[in-house]
Amino acid sequence: VAIVLYDLAGKDGVRFSPNCWRTRMALAHKGLDTETRATRFTEIPGILDGTQKTLPIIDDCGKIISDSWVIANYLEKAYPDRPSLFGGAGGRALTEFMLTWCNSVVQSAIISFIILDIHDALTAEDRAYFRTSREARFGKTLEAMQGGREARLESFRAALQPLRLHLKTQAFLGGATPLYADYLVFGALQWARTVSRFALLDDTDPVSAWFDRCLDLHGGLGRRAASICQ
Amino acid sequence: VAIVLYDLAGKDGVRFSPNCWRTRMALAHKGLDTETRATRFTEIPGILDGTQKTLPIIDDCGKIISDSWVIANYLEKAYPDRPSLFGGAGGRALTEFMLTWCNSVVQSAIISFIILDIHDALTAEDRAYFRTSREARFGKTLEAMQGGREARLESFRAALQPLRLHLKTQAFLGGATPLYADYLVFGALQWARTVSRFALLDDTDPVSAWFDRCLDLHGGLGRRAASICQ
Repeated sequence: VAIVLYDLAGKDGVRFSPNCWRTRMALAHKGLDTETRATRFTEIPGILDGTQKTLPIIDDCGKIISDSWVIANYLEKAYPDRPSLFGGAGGRALTEFMLTWCNSVVQSAIISFIILDIHDALTAEDRAYFRTSREARFGKTLEAMQGGREARLESFRAALQPLRLHLKTQAFLGGATPLYADYLVFGALQWARTVSRFALLDDTDPVSAWFDRCLDLHGGLGRRAASICQ
Repeated sequence: VAIVLYDLAGKDGVRFSPNCWRTRMALAHKGLDTETRATRFTEIPGILDGTQKTLPIIDDCGKIISDSWVIANYLEKAYPDRPSLFGGAGGRALTEFMLTWCNSVVQSAIISFIILDIHDALTAEDRAYFRTSREARFGKTLEAMQGGREARLESFRAALQPLRLHLKTQAFLGGATPLYADYLVFGALQWARTVSRFALLDDTDPVSAWFDRCLDLHGGLGRRAASICQ
């Protein structure tokens, strides 16, 4: 029986959520059969027992697990014979640092580049919810948040320097092969790729070459994904 | 036979080098007998075969190894039955990311807070070498580099946010117990602690509490170290 992934979806089936992408890649890394269920923001209260607030959620034969980090740890424990997501206890601990780096440095910057683009990639029903909730959270309009993004690009790219330096000697954050740490940062960049035409990375950036490698992983799972640019 | 660590030294025996502290803590973590040899900048060309340029260097029964990262990998491989520095292959790979984060975000900022203080903590012979080489490298005087440091403190502290968030749920970067990743960032802060009175961290910062825990490790090795403040 396939594991069900409730996967955040926009219009035209676009799957854009960075945290859902982490989980999708983790399931593929483990080689687990997965059925994704496209779920719009406004559909979340209607799934399962109605108490869920955020995605991703997985349903593994009746075990319901939410929160991408909790899911990753569940998968690592439940499927120990499949390829490891962390590469051992030290890897798991340092993946938690990668998680805070990804959230506080990478994703918090990317949101300001694409928040209006995300809105535009949603279905009509979801747009109103997204605008209201995000404008309340950030205290400004989506247009004001995304505006002037070109001027912020240089500092965003500079903030990726630790990853860039790492990739001078390694194919992936995980070394010769990817680990969950790769999927954290991949998810952030895939978020932008699926909803926006704005170029976050310079083509000559080693981070761009790494992202290309990630798009090819697991049978090109990331590359085959629908995006608003298609 | 003890492993010999050639350890960068200032005046009054102060051991301040961040990269030497990484190695010193790694040796203690492995529980290896260590004899440190205080070595001034201008004494480096006179040690061993005379070809060495930088410290740390270890001499393990005739095996001469330089570069703190190479040394860490050597110790992990040569002493596999001692406590691991990386906690597995995934941990080792992600420690390389921590290394680039520490170098490019933490140490590159700290140098601008303490470069004149480092100079003042050196012996008279070393001061001329240090001033000439560093002013050439950075293209400005030590005084100009360190000047106005108070104004840069806020952005430095903000850059530690991923570590701060990690420490909300974990005692160490390595989890419940420290790994080499901890010693990377510890070395950077110990560098400042040994040569400078400038307070890099707010006392209420969780990073400060973590640094205190690191100072207590291995019998208080870091806390007992000489500093110019004593």
